Amino acid sequence: MTLDLAIRGGTVATASDVFRADVGIKDGGIVQIGLGLDAAETIDATGRLVLPGGIDSHVHIAQPSGDGIVMADDFESGTRSALFGGNTCVLPFCLQAKGQSLRAAVEDYHALAAGNCYTDVSFHLIVSDPTPAVLGQELPALVADGYTSFKVFMTYENLRLNDAEILATMDTARRTGALVMVHCENEDAIRYLIGRHEAAGDVRPSAHATTRPVAVEREATHRAVSLAEIVDVPVVIVHVSNGAALGEIRAARGRGRKVVAETCPQYLMLTAADLDGMDWEGAKFVCSPPPRNETEQRACWTGIEQGDFDLFSSDHCPFRYDDPSGKLSPKGRTSFRHVPNGIPGVETRLPILFSEGVGKGRIDLSRFVALTATNHARLYGLERKGSIAVGMDADIAIWDPKARRTIRHADLHDGADYSPYEGIEVTGWPETVIVGGRIMVRNGALAGAKGTGRHVPRSLSLLGVRPAAPA
Amino acid sequence: MTLDLAIRGGTVATASDVFRADVGIKDGGIVQIGLGLDAAETIDATGRLVLPGGIDSHVHIAQPSGDGIVMADDFESGTRSALFGGNTCVLPFCLQAKGQSLRAAVEDYHALAAGNCYTDVSFHLIVSDPTPAVLGQELPALVADGYTSFKVFMTYENLRLNDAEILATMDTARRTGALVMVHCENEDAIRYLIGRHEAAGDVRPSAHATTRPVAVEREATHRAVSLAEIVDVPVVIVHVSNGAALGEIRAARGRGRKVVAETCPQYLMLTAADLDGMDWEGAKFVCSPPPRNETEQRACWTGIEQGDFDLFSSDHCPFRYDDPSGKLSPKGRTSFRHVPNGIPGVETRLPILFSEGVGKGRIDLSRFVALTATNHARLYGLERKGSIAVGMDADIAIWDPKARRTIRHADLHDGADYSPYEGIEVTGWPETVIVGGRIMVRNGALAGAKGTGRHVPRSLSLLGVRPAAPA
Amino acid sequence: MTLDLAIRGGTVATASDVFRADVGIKDGGIVQIGLGLDAAETIDATGRLVLPGGIDSHVHIAQPSGDGIVMADDFESGTRSALFGGNTCVLPFCLQAKGQSLRAAVEDYHALAAGNCYTDVSFHLIVSDPTPAVLGQELPALVADGYTSFKVFMTYENLRLNDAEILATMDTARRTGALVMVHCENEDAIRYLIGRHEAAGDVRPSAHATTRPVAVEREATHRAVSLAEIVDVPVVIVHVSNGAALGEIRAARGRGRKVVAETCPQYLMLTAADLDGMDWEGAKFVCSPPPRNETEQRACWTGIEQGDFDLFSSDHCPFRYDDPSGKLSPKGRTSFRHVPNGIPGVETRLPILFSEGVGKGRIDLSRFVALTATNHARLYGLERKGSIAVGMDADIAIWDPKARRTIRHADLHDGADYSPYEGIEVTGWPETVIVGGRIMVRNGALAGAKGTGRHVPRSLSLLGVRPAAPA
Amino acid sequence: MTLDLAIRGGTVATASDVFRADVGIKDGGIVQIGLGLDAAETIDATGRLVLPGGIDSHVHIAQPSGDGIVMADDFESGTRSALFGGNTCVLPFCLQAKGQSLRAAVEDYHALAAGNCYTDVSFHLIVSDPTPAVLGQELPALVADGYTSFKVFMTYENLRLNDAEILATMDTARRTGALVMVHCENEDAIRYLIGRHEAAGDVRPSAHATTRPVAVEREATHRAVSLAEIVDVPVVIVHVSNGAALGEIRAARGRGRKVVAETCPQYLMLTAADLDGMDWEGAKFVCSPPPRNETEQRACWTGIEQGDFDLFSSDHCPFRYDDPSGKLSPKGRTSFRHVPNGIPGVETRLPILFSEGVGKGRIDLSRFVALTATNHARLYGLERKGSIAVGMDADIAIWDPKARRTIRHADLHDGADYSPYEGIEVTGWPETVIVGGRIMVRNGALAGAKGTGRHVPRSLSLLGVRPAAPA
Repeated sequence: MTLDLAIRGGTVATASDVFRADVGIKDGGIVQIGLGLDAAETIDATGRLVLPGGIDSHVHIAQPSGDGIVMADDFESGTRSALFGGNTCVLPFCLQAKGQSLRAAVEDYHALAAGNCYTDVSFHLIVSDPTPAVLGQELPALVADGYTSFKVFMTYENLRLNDAEILATMDTARRTGALVMVHCENEDAIRYLIGRHEAAGDVRPSAHATTRPVAVEREATHRAVSLAEIVDVPVVIVHVSNGAALGEIRAARGRGRKVVAETCPQYLMLTAADLDGMDWEGAKFVCSPPPRNETEQRACWTGIEQGDFDLFSSDHCPFRYDDPSGKLSPKGRTSFRHVPNGIPGVETRLPILFSEGVGKGRIDLSRFVALTATNHARLYGLERKGSIAVGMDADIAIWDPKARRTIRHADLHDGADYSPYEGIEVTGWPETVIVGGRIMVRNGALAGAKGTGRHVPRSLSLLGVRPAAPA
Repeated sequence: MTLDLAIRGGTVATASDVFRADVGIKDGGIVQIGLGLDAAETIDATGRLVLPGGIDSHVHIAQPSGDGIVMADDFESGTRSALFGGNTCVLPFCLQAKGQSLRAAVEDYHALAAGNCYTDVSFHLIVSDPTPAVLGQELPALVADGYTSFKVFMTYENLRLNDAEILATMDTARRTGALVMVHCENEDAIRYLIGRHEAAGDVRPSAHATTRPVAVEREATHRAVSLAEIVDVPVVIVHVSNGAALGEIRAARGRGRKVVAETCPQYLMLTAADLDGMDWEGAKFVCSPPPRNETEQRACWTGIEQGDFDLFSSDHCPFRYDDPSGKLSPKGRTSFRHVPNGIPGVETRLPILFSEGVGKGRIDLSRFVALTATNHARLYGLERKGSIAVGMDADIAIWDPKARRTIRHADLHDGADYSPYEGIEVTGWPETVIVGGRIMVRNGALAGAKGTGRHVPRSLSLLGVRPAAPA
Repeated sequence: MTLDLAIRGGTVATASDVFRADVGIKDGGIVQIGLGLDAAETIDATGRLVLPGGIDSHVHIAQPSGDGIVMADDFESGTRSALFGGNTCVLPFCLQAKGQSLRAAVEDYHALAAGNCYTDVSFHLIVSDPTPAVLGQELPALVADGYTSFKVFMTYENLRLNDAEILATMDTARRTGALVMVHCENEDAIRYLIGRHEAAGDVRPSAHATTRPVAVEREATHRAVSLAEIVDVPVVIVHVSNGAALGEIRAARGRGRKVVAETCPQYLMLTAADLDGMDWEGAKFVCSPPPRNETEQRACWTGIEQGDFDLFSSDHCPFRYDDPSGKLSPKGRTSFRHVPNGIPGVETRLPILFSEGVGKGRIDLSRFVALTATNHARLYGLERKGSIAVGMDADIAIWDPKARRTIRHADLHDGADYSPYEGIEVTGWPETVIVGGRIMVRNGALAGAKGTGRHVPRSLSLLGVRPAAPA
Repeated sequence: MTLDLAIRGGTVATASDVFRADVGIKDGGIVQIGLGLDAAETIDATGRLVLPGGIDSHVHIAQPSGDGIVMADDFESGTRSALFGGNTCVLPFCLQAKGQSLRAAVEDYHALAAGNCYTDVSFHLIVSDPTPAVLGQELPALVADGYTSFKVFMTYENLRLNDAEILATMDTARRTGALVMVHCENEDAIRYLIGRHEAAGDVRPSAHATTRPVAVEREATHRAVSLAEIVDVPVVIVHVSNGAALGEIRAARGRGRKVVAETCPQYLMLTAADLDGMDWEGAKFVCSPPPRNETEQRACWTGIEQGDFDLFSSDHCPFRYDDPSGKLSPKGRTSFRHVPNGIPGVETRLPILFSEGVGKGRIDLSRFVALTATNHARLYGLERKGSIAVGMDADIAIWDPKARRTIRHADLHDGADYSPYEGIEVTGWPETVIVGGRIMVRNGALAGAKGTGRHVPRSLSLLGVRPAAPA
């Protein structure tokens, strides 16, 4: 067997092991791991880390945001940015509009993505209108077609589901084996606090944080895990921002519940003080849940270190800052309520965790791989992704662990016009990225073509439970 | 490169991945993982699982037990039993007697082990006499020689250390990077309760459980994690038997402490009711901590399922039941106080967890591998063990996942005369076991020679933190 | 000063003290406490306990229940039953119907009560339709008129408020100083579980318990305390039935929140097994939340013993069992869904807690007085009630602490046709009951007239915070 | 009956009630509470609060402190200071020296107290040498004589008991019904940290706090409640300084354990930063446990507000600051280790809690009375003290709730030469204090004689459980 490509001399890391070996690739897959491999083409990875390509299971691309607001990334720029950040697969959302068929929404997003992707993509669904037809027919059919996870919102007026709707949607998950993700913030409580802030004339960006305090997220988190307990399904709690919400997740696990927890770079690196930015500078950091204080930041780091978090995602949701259709639209300048929620981060996710986590000794390389790739694949049913092992897709990022970089938006590849992490210094950066055996980035330069990335249907989540015996 | 041995067609599992591949072995190590490997010798593993050999990091072999009591296993029978149970490495203890040099104790155990082992062995130390000389000179030198973990006892009159001694011992760990394991039961509280039981005339085996209630273990567990917090070292809490002690560990982790937690088959499969056995039948189940009730058993299972436990070990500590030098010595028949503490289990550990855990869907194969091999290697510094990856020792167990067996002591290979798990039915059994590339058990029959097993010095525990960059 | 009445020679108990003294009454109030008091009329209380009359702050009287179901007590029978049970004041509810003016609801209940009461009464309000007019005008005016507490429901299709409505109602409490009580069960979750039970054909009374599991109450309890945290008001959690919900309350208090907790006799004395009654016998025990298992029962006792509960109320809500307009209406026999929720208990509340609590050494007399009288008065703003002290209303119950009684509905005075506590033996019973200085029950026989009981407007709850200085 | 003394027109407060009434006194006791009382002598309390005299159940008087250090108060100055601070009874300790008979220790302290006291006193015992003779004979006899509580130390080299000794002492409590108080700090851990500080050359007063971190107290607290759980006795945890230790107490109560919790002014008003005082100024604040940070201070306030603390005591333990036999002895200036542990506070305890607690709306008057008087009496068996009720000793403090004072040591009456609370402004001060019916302080001036205070033997603690029926 002649290999198409061999990565030689590097240090390979999986969620379990770190070892010196060559990796042999053929027909887009990993077929051999050993020493002294020959191939048609070889990459010298001496002094480099050979890691599974990052999987970012929480990105928003090309979603409408109401009010004429436009998300700053389409599939081309979004996946290009992901790619340069060491990712080989991203999981964006197909957002169902109220009244819309879910299947139609899926088709819309496929149309936007087709031929435009630099990384593989696989869609989650966002259920905003769980009619009997959606839950009874469309969703089961979509799950069967490989859309095996869907997200529900407890916040945002136009997206939120009430408890009855969440229960019904979870029940569909129970019947189909799909996985439910929940954005946990209590919309009514936020509305109430917005009312009090507006009555007091406080409409600054910082009010975005004070109208969404920890209690609002803690409440919704406990409710989400309780509803999942009542239906008896696993549940993913996305973008956990603080220790109290994480405490609810720990408590649910202590009751034997299967709860997956995700956090994001903003909760490790930013605080609500960033929203205090002079004038509307703070608008750059408006995302939900908002960054918290330093105590909660430490609690999130503890959750990373102790293994409480399964997933580290970006929740990439880019809006241009200085743009009439972005953060600072004319309306956006009038009140925090009109600043679109979301910040970019798909390209900086991996270097930040590598530098702050692995580099500073908080986590080891295997945990890094698990948090950024393997667990995403396992939990969301990407059977051939997320690790470097025989039989896996050849989705690989080759890192220079000693490269020092200062994050500058000017160097990034997304469609936004700023990075919330501007100026942060990191050590370690992905220099070569391979998707399905094709070298897409080589030594930091684009080497592959748009459209290389495919859509990947997914299996049901095993939530960590594999069959006892081989087929 | 011609391989010495290839295991072909099996399903390989690591703590991260499960995949179909051949495993190629040369010079005792794994050198290649791929498809279609050829070798001087091949094993057909079609329909089989190819797992890292079990590592049992908590076994007692050939330790004296006072009062003329003799442990039922020497290194020959103990490692043979381990081997047949799918293990390729065990970590027994070198027990320092009061007044004895630790180095001398180490030499004693080496003398007992030399030439007698079927599996690799690597010694922990038991520090029972932490004199300044022991802590200041002997321990650091032994750590440098690869004895990188030591255990202290909070119970047993002849072994227990007081808090000052534990702190001093932990401080040596802090200075040397070694890892401290703690047996957590409050000896004074046990003595107090023994006094009350004896005053009431209750000396039955069941009193072993009621004189060591959960509160005794919970107290000592909190104390151990607190002392480690004060010294600022990681700590291993061995043989956790109940939800309250596990709760203390979870709380410590929430405070950011590095705490490793171990549980054992007896806490998943037995209860204190087993000690109620008629007459002295209950003596068979006397171990410390004692098995608890069904609620605590479920709490231990939850701990396994949720990832709270890092290690699943046997705490193999065999005494013959019907023997004047074992459980039923003349003195042993007079009071539970004189029944030696400990039960056998090194051979049944893996099949029990495989069948009850993987087979019943509580955990997946990767978690099984982590709990029984990988984590033991990582946490205790066995750099070349615990996984199936290039560069690892060829320590492999090939399982028939569908084999059905009823546990009968008659079929086991240890030196005791009973199994506490007699009659339990399991599905899945290791049929072929390879140590350092040598086939030691082939299809259930002994195929290798005594003395094949070597002693393996260990690195410092990385406690999960690997260097960020390859050397 | 000539006293109207003196109770002589008894042992007086308050929430603070137990002492031997005479109690002197004039013009309906307590004016003197001392030794050797003379009066126009005297009662010999030698060997008796002289306690503040019970205040039951959670009773339902004459409320409509939909479907033609009729509550079994009007104000005459309800307050008569309360009186014989040692109570001198009860707090029933004025239930606002959807679309109804709250003021009109209040007037309706006053019309029902006027001239018919044996004990004093003071109304809580139930807000079922929190329109801007209700919250903005009616409620503040009613609070000013002495209706200083209102209850909201998270369950019952026709009563439940959503979170936005609860927040708005709590905000009115914030602005007026009134106190909000919450019935905590998640209606949507119950509906979901009812759907699953019905789909499975399970419509027995026992399904009342399994469709309202602990998680349903725990969720709503955490939500209620969180909403109160967001608005920043105290909150009363009524009829807590289990340790998990109580745990949420403890956690909220640990965060510094003012949370009042109430439990009821059914959660100390009954279990869900009572609903398993043959055929429809279980319907007798249908109330919400349902009784739980023995572990939760113990948790409620622990809450009583440890002072976690502030209030012990009956949640008296009587329906006749064998009656076409009660539990076993024709519809009620078809499904647990149609069995009216609620059980009688106003007359048995005090003897049960006295016998099981004080008699069995779980609590002392002062705690009994606090749980059954003083705390109700303090927390709900009944300034002149709930204790035996100078200046208080002469609302007194004289107990024979040694009287032994078996609870038989035939001996009770309510309008229902059964007691859920039938056959329970108690020691201690109120034999003489004085309301506002009038002897209403003397040695177990009715001695006062209907209409003696008045309506009592209430001050704002001080929630335990009294002014630092006297006026 | 002619009264000896009547306090007229004031507002009386008990742990249960606040009411306007006159209080009538005869033969040293309260015999009547009513309106319009006449007496041989009257006090006009219009606009004043009439409170039970404070009981301070944790004061150290005339104890030796080793190294030639002399406690700054003898019984004369100590009780005079207490008296001026609104107290009518204090509970000092009889400290058993190693090897000494407990009975002899008791006699020693009686000799020191006899004829010298301004307030009543009642002795706790400190058991430092629990020999079989002490536990088997002396203690039971002393309990029978009214010394119904004893304290054990987990810290201080010369006082600490090991767990076996604590268990044996608790067992004596179990057999006699006495109550055990525990000072919870892990001595070995402190020694370890002192060693590290000294090795690093840090001997400043601030090191007193950093060698006794929260973990040291949390560990010992959990151990103390666990040992009490094993013996099955109630336990008093004295001077709780932080939220973590309080959390252990809450958890024990959740397990159904009877645990009494005490805190002190230093944990509400001071922080460890006070020990950072320039040069040796910080020595003024050296007490154990040390004051903590602001988060822990808030946690203690929450414990006060929520009713977690039963007792608020001073732990008065005065040493002169600028004195060769006090804080700044020649040795004391060399290292924090030689600064005697303890600060004065018996005179400022009540005004501080009144002003900061009642005055700022954190607690109400009844809670103030409970925390400062009633609970001390109930829990330690002072049957006739701690409240204003018929039959109680006439121990009363009349407060001017509006008096504004700045705390100045120059105005205080103890034997120390500073107050740690110097300069704090308070509102509310006791102006007249009556002990056993005798006016000892009248309008702020001494009016009674030394020696008026008697020793009061105590009953067994009922720990809140009174007999169900009157005798």
